[in-house]
Amino acid sequence: MKNSFYFDTKPNEKILELIKSEREEIGFYELCHQDVSEYEEYAKTITAQDIVVVGIGGSALGTSAIYKFLKYTNQFSKKLYVIETTDPLVICDEMEKIDLANAHFCIISKSGTTVETISVYKYIASIVDIHSKNCTIITDEGSLLESHAIHNDIKVFHIPHNVGGRFSVLSAVGLAPLAMIGVDIASLLEGARNIYDSFFNQEGYDTSLLKKATYYAQTANTYNINCLFSYSEVFREFNAWYVQLWGESLGKKQLHSQLHVGLTPVGLIGPTDQHSFLQLIVDGKRDKSVTVIKIANFENSLTIPNNSLKDLESLDILNGYKFSEIINMQADSIVESLLSLEHIPLDVIEVSQADAHAIGELIYYYELLTALVARMLDINAYDQPGVEMGKIILKEKLNKK
Amino acid sequence: MKNSFYFDTKPNEKILELIKSEREEIGFYELCHQDVSEYEEYAKTITAQDIVVVGIGGSALGTSAIYKFLKYTNQFSKKLYVIETTDPLVICDEMEKIDLANAHFCIISKSGTTVETISVYKYIASIVDIHSKNCTIITDEGSLLESHAIHNDIKVFHIPHNVGGRFSVLSAVGLAPLAMIGVDIASLLEGARNIYDSFFNQEGYDTSLLKKATYYAQTANTYNINCLFSYSEVFREFNAWYVQLWGESLGKKQLHSQLHVGLTPVGLIGPTDQHSFLQLIVDGKRDKSVTVIKIANFENSLTIPNNSLKDLESLDILNGYKFSEIINMQADSIVESLLSLEHIPLDVIEVSQADAHAIGELIYYYELLTALVARMLDINAYDQPGVEMGKIILKEKLNKK
Repeated sequence: MKNSFYFDTKPNEKILELIKSEREEIGFYELCHQDVSEYEEYAKTITAQDIVVVGIGGSALGTSAIYKFLKYTNQFSKKLYVIETTDPLVICDEMEKIDLANAHFCIISKSGTTVETISVYKYIASIVDIHSKNCTIITDEGSLLESHAIHNDIKVFHIPHNVGGRFSVLSAVGLAPLAMIGVDIASLLEGARNIYDSFFNQEGYDTSLLKKATYYAQTANTYNINCLFSYSEVFREFNAWYVQLWGESLGKKQLHSQLHVGLTPVGLIGPTDQHSFLQLIVDGKRDKSVTVIKIANFENSLTIPNNSLKDLESLDILNGYKFSEIINMQADSIVESLLSLEHIPLDVIEVSQADAHAIGELIYYYELLTALVARMLDINAYDQPGVEMGKIILKEKLNKK
Repeated sequence: MKNSFYFDTKPNEKILELIKSEREEIGFYELCHQDVSEYEEYAKTITAQDIVVVGIGGSALGTSAIYKFLKYTNQFSKKLYVIETTDPLVICDEMEKIDLANAHFCIISKSGTTVETISVYKYIASIVDIHSKNCTIITDEGSLLESHAIHNDIKVFHIPHNVGGRFSVLSAVGLAPLAMIGVDIASLLEGARNIYDSFFNQEGYDTSLLKKATYYAQTANTYNINCLFSYSEVFREFNAWYVQLWGESLGKKQLHSQLHVGLTPVGLIGPTDQHSFLQLIVDGKRDKSVTVIKIANFENSLTIPNNSLKDLESLDILNGYKFSEIINMQADSIVESLLSLEHIPLDVIEVSQADAHAIGELIYYYELLTALVARMLDINAYDQPGVEMGKIILKEKLNKK
């Protein structure tokens, strides 16, 4: 991937020592160095055609992001379904599509007692005979869900204790189901390692990533909204993954001041959202930075034909262009138009193509960026104390009835 | 629908005269009083099974919002497809699903020369014989697309000149394709009229809507982000429609000061995004208001069974609850937890059920709210000057090659 900046700042190099020592404690950094053969071997034993992930938040978003990124240009032999809600309309709709007799269920919960996940699991267990051959459980070592799996002779993969949910896609959480549907997970981690190496091993660090993190942290009060304008539908779920990673990691009280800080992520898809959110970026309050993501090679030759439609001849200027050229020219046009305006910090990420290596790079790049910004904002990127109160109130309500 | 506020302000009643005179000029206000029989009669003549909308932004988002809201609980005899991009991966994917010989194409473009829409139309016209029986065109009177339609004997519906794209869902833009797939468009407009009447006819106006608009306008600099936390997947596309309406209408230079102002819309889906964005609302910068939307009656009885899973017995407290009860208890828990915090303005909208009347209400409510806030912020809600530059640059690029 190639990242072009259109803003400048002096990178905060002091943070490097903190990040290097954090790397000893926090687990996501080293996930890119795993041996994936265990997942690949296990995946070979799964013959079911429908792979059903039951999980929510960090247990689902990363897997969906990678699958969506790849599914248009890769022919997978198996289908992935993700159930990540208690919405009965969605559960019924998804269950109708799944061939239950030919399905493998991945029940994924870090704590092991996530209400949404266990609710759906209970329902599935009431209509399907769950056993060692059609179920895999992915959870923390020592969780109640692990005990349940052991009792039922169900295969368990552990999530390392020091890997948080939203940083867990490159652990068993993502690797196990992705291997099952045929994603090249070795190449995925190779992409992640690429970013790791360029940051940690290239004469110390990658200045560009550090520069970007420094800029975001320094301007957090001015540009409190960060827009990711991704030019292809393949990024739809990646955007959702980014929103969780960025929002849940960076929306915190500062460790030393206890002040509320936070950067608000917004995921946009081009060109569609040129007809929606773009006006707000251009003319609205100057509180937004923008990152445009493009795909250099769509590996698709769909072309606007050389036909001329009566009275629409003025649009014959489109003739002969590949749609992939049009979408990238649209991205470039928006970049140029935003560059002509003041106070809209902009950068462009270009990924080579929609393959596992590219999405591995992108994921690791954003995880590292998040970790760096969090350190500079003096917040803990890895907890989520704000969501506990809602869970407690729900338990009270459940117990009342 | 029922709207409960947890913040207070004195409604700005001075705006009422401005809105009442604006109603004489701006077309969306009176769309709810249309006779829909023309659309219903025309729809009866369409026998194709696949209805394909080719449009982008305001020509597509509202139709998708209504269809998604209804499709889980209504059995439509026809399928809706929406192509709203130049992304070749999506175009190929959608075209594969459509039965081209049994499809009716609705080509929708207000200007008549939208690049994305005409690109896709050109492609479709190269692989399907387009004629009066399998195509409907919806555009402004006098556009080049209208001339094209007349030349080819294709039925045209007009978009009133004084109805902007993002306010056009209750014009032919939405009504024509929705009638074709069997949506009760009379009930849709009845819902919209309900809000119209409660605002304009009930002893002058509905105070609650005016109060909410006043609060948002008065606090625009403090709470510059407005989150719509919708508790069901049925709202997924409604959220996207809201993001366009809010962002594109309210992201503007002020008429008198030329200052950049804007309120940033964020669409969230519960409970899924409790595991994503919620942490940022709770602990992040206090720059967000929240509106929770709930469905009172899901018309779905899916229930968590009375089974007990070994080692997960602590979650038997879920047993016997309908999933629809769980999701609404989750919404209520989040409302309670947010109410315990300071500086997070909150309101709750409860719609009765996922039917045409309810989505008609919701759409008109948000259109009216947007118009009111725009007036108070001293901006023109109905133009989008900021998106023109990108279009001009694109045309230059297209002409260069």
